[in-house]
Amino acid sequence: MSHFQHHVFFCLNRRDEGRDCCACHDAERLQAYAKDRVKQLGLAGPGKVRVNKAGCLDRCELGPVVVVYPEAIWYTYVDEKDIDEIVESHLLNGRPVERLMIE
Amino acid sequence: MSHFQHHVFFCLNRRDEGRDCCACHDAERLQAYAKDRVKQLGLAGPGKVRVNKAGCLDRCELGPVVVVYPEAIWYTYVDEKDIDEIVESHLLNGRPVERLMIE
Repeated sequence: MSHFQHHVFFCLNRRDEGRDCCACHDAERLQAYAKDRVKQLGLAGPGKVRVNKAGCLDRCELGPVVVVYPEAIWYTYVDEKDIDEIVESHLLNGRPVERLMIE
Repeated sequence: MSHFQHHVFFCLNRRDEGRDCCACHDAERLQAYAKDRVKQLGLAGPGKVRVNKAGCLDRCELGPVVVVYPEAIWYTYVDEKDIDEIVESHLLNGRPVERLMIE
């Protein structure tokens, strides 16, 4: 059994040499927001959900990206509204958010 | 299908307030070592293996820890020898390393 029901990794990579990057799209702020929302909903902890920071997930051209394991579902997102939908639909209710998925 | 066959996250969290932490056990150096070994073996890339840095995985008392998804297999490790075994047995040959697993 997985130690976390959903283990969520936000790419927070920052590139300064002109290439696009997740941190250029507010990933740090929105990772913190997701972590707070998960905590507020009582979802945080072993057997439940963990929201983590991660280094470059190597999908820069599709960023900002987040991946949810063990389902291996990848998302892109724009703002708090997208994060809310991922948290409430996928993490709380087990229904992945098709409109934000990337392959 | 998972974008990476094996997605490996090393906890690199550093605590300065006296609590034990993964970075206190050489996690940064050994994550870089693992990433290099994966590259040397030709395992790095989409459809294959990605070795990532991660923030605190919240298993400090068992650290240093690394988790491999989508299998959700957690390991602790001590040195290069342990990393070699994880890379060669699990990531290259698909045989998880029982002696290093944590639940």
